[in-house]
Amino acid sequence: MRYEAMWRDLLPIGHVSGGGHRRFSWTAADRECRAWFTEEAHRRGLTLEQDRNGNLFAWWDVPGGAARRDAVLTGSHLDSVPDGGAFDGPLGVVSALAAIDLLRERGVAPARPLGVAVFAEEEGARFGVACLGSRLLTGAIDPVRARGLRDGDGVTWADAMAADGHDPEAIGPDPDLLAGIGCFVELHVEQGRALQTPVGVASAIWPHGRWRFDFTGQGNHAGTTLLPDRRDPMLPFAHTVLAARDAAARHEAVATMGKVRVTPNGVNAIPSAVQAWLDTRAPDDAAVRATVADIRAAAEKAAGEHGVGVTLAEESYTEVVDFRTELRDRLVTTLGGAPVLPTGAGHDAGILSAHVPTAMLFVRNPTGVSHAPEEHAETGDCLAGVEALAAVLENLITS
Amino acid sequence: MRYEAMWRDLLPIGHVSGGGHRRFSWTAADRECRAWFTEEAHRRGLTLEQDRNGNLFAWWDVPGGAARRDAVLTGSHLDSVPDGGAFDGPLGVVSALAAIDLLRERGVAPARPLGVAVFAEEEGARFGVACLGSRLLTGAIDPVRARGLRDGDGVTWADAMAADGHDPEAIGPDPDLLAGIGCFVELHVEQGRALQTPVGVASAIWPHGRWRFDFTGQGNHAGTTLLPDRRDPMLPFAHTVLAARDAAARHEAVATMGKVRVTPNGVNAIPSAVQAWLDTRAPDDAAVRATVADIRAAAEKAAGEHGVGVTLAEESYTEVVDFRTELRDRLVTTLGGAPVLPTGAGHDAGILSAHVPTAMLFVRNPTGVSHAPEEHAETGDCLAGVEALAAVLENLITS
Repeated sequence: MRYEAMWRDLLPIGHVSGGGHRRFSWTAADRECRAWFTEEAHRRGLTLEQDRNGNLFAWWDVPGGAARRDAVLTGSHLDSVPDGGAFDGPLGVVSALAAIDLLRERGVAPARPLGVAVFAEEEGARFGVACLGSRLLTGAIDPVRARGLRDGDGVTWADAMAADGHDPEAIGPDPDLLAGIGCFVELHVEQGRALQTPVGVASAIWPHGRWRFDFTGQGNHAGTTLLPDRRDPMLPFAHTVLAARDAAARHEAVATMGKVRVTPNGVNAIPSAVQAWLDTRAPDDAAVRATVADIRAAAEKAAGEHGVGVTLAEESYTEVVDFRTELRDRLVTTLGGAPVLPTGAGHDAGILSAHVPTAMLFVRNPTGVSHAPEEHAETGDCLAGVEALAAVLENLITS
Repeated sequence: MRYEAMWRDLLPIGHVSGGGHRRFSWTAADRECRAWFTEEAHRRGLTLEQDRNGNLFAWWDVPGGAARRDAVLTGSHLDSVPDGGAFDGPLGVVSALAAIDLLRERGVAPARPLGVAVFAEEEGARFGVACLGSRLLTGAIDPVRARGLRDGDGVTWADAMAADGHDPEAIGPDPDLLAGIGCFVELHVEQGRALQTPVGVASAIWPHGRWRFDFTGQGNHAGTTLLPDRRDPMLPFAHTVLAARDAAARHEAVATMGKVRVTPNGVNAIPSAVQAWLDTRAPDDAAVRATVADIRAAAEKAAGEHGVGVTLAEESYTEVVDFRTELRDRLVTTLGGAPVLPTGAGHDAGILSAHVPTAMLFVRNPTGVSHAPEEHAETGDCLAGVEALAAVLENLITS
């Protein structure tokens, strides 16, 4: 099994000295990740394909097989949040390839094709919509909207994709590819502290969404503009940050405002505009909606008091994903029992689950830190994850 | 008098389509501004000099004059805040050159040298310390500290200066240059709405300063980190923004938090750090100090409640500047009377005033908007400013 060598090659890609990983779609780091995956696929004699939406697949086909039918898909993603950890995404890809190594070492002969997927723009870190690759594949986002999504520098998904040599006009639902997938199992590092054993199985993904607030005031001089003459958008933004925390506590949800863009962002200038993004999640849809409604009301009230305009746009929303399926039970049985737990983190598995039987394996996260350079998983737990995934895949591809 | 043509050439430099001006020190736009000034100096047969600190001077020397002594200096700056207006700085430079045109058309023969200054990094928009060029010239900042000032990308003042072909080791006080300056008169667009006539004279500059808050928490996943487990620096930052407004109102000051840097600034990541800058000004030093002390206390309290670290650093502080000098009275007399008013805006004149008799002329700002693309002054008022400056300069250089 090639395990440590894969990490050795993958870890430096997009790594910022003193920080975490910055692997954003269609950047140099992304190309290096894709090249790494391509090489690992070729090394194993897997058939590498890139679909029309930027997702990569490495296939272990059945001998003499024609079109892929009832394939077992595993894998995850390689892109990262800004200063992301090493495991979020890559652990699922590395573990999938390592599991194939284990199965081959054990002489397992697949009766169904086995694919390893690398989904594009899972984090939405560059273009704002999470799971963009799997959303495009499954038709969960309009290709016209996807083409027009812009990064922080105003570059569109279409232009970024084209600059990397791909045809943005070809993106969109791929029912043929989907029809060939019999089930999807994604292994992922746990992102909270709920898992007390090395490996667990997912019960559900909380509903979650992203909203953008646009506060618009009047840019002005920080020294000469008296307080009553100000229309400073930073003030209602600050009220909204605090309101988000209160609303989340009230509705047993989580709410985060982790991304802000201030215009012009000068020390001696009252801002003309503040854009701020809200991420809200909760165990059920009603709690998410109630939380966002409360935050919106607080933002509008504060904006009105400061003579500032405010709009709220929903950038993405994913309903609750319930993995209470036959596939999930099969995983638990194959593993001889395993803890079953929900997660507040979104995954491509959540998108795929609307179309094919889907399940997830989690690997323990001792500190619960994720989306940060300090994210960590013990090697022993990761290897237990590979073993568990191999057992699950063997069970699926041989029957 | 060459007036409209100067604006026509100068306005497009560093202008962002749909926004304001972005003329930051040692960038391409800055080089274009310097080239424009050089050409205007040569066009008038003025002697162009750049001092060791990046400041430019165009000299109208007296015939047969040897070393400059008791020179009259005017001028302002050409750099801008992000998305700055057209007049803040450039109006003083254009008016100075236009005033020379007027004086020559009228056959005025100077008995004292007349210089037009373009001071570097007046806004502090790139390297954080306002009036850096005049501070270096007068010894108001340690050259070692100045060399190490960094822009948002981590580039130092020393490296940026060197990349533009200047020697950063040579920066620092220039007593010889200063000793030759008999007085300084800066014309500037007014930045509030206090001036009701086309031209006024400055009485004082409010004490003002800049402070940087560093809030340090724990970066984490926005979906999986429960509220009690969070150490989110965005929350105490928001408390501090609101506390700044309250403290300013309490002490009859102004306080602005217009610049923020969030790390990593991802939608689905609790930030690990928030840097935020505070600009505070008031009519007197005690009010500024009391305001900042209150804001600091609020920041520390909020940070403590959220398990977040916070530090406060004073990046610059300028004490009150009182222009109640003989020179100010002479300006008012020369203009046959003029309104006299204070300002909350900092200027190179404030730095120079500690070393040479200094005065300021203000040109009316009908809306009071400044440090924003909407900044405006009527052409009639600007031409009245040129006439007033010409009258003042004629009075000074002929006696």
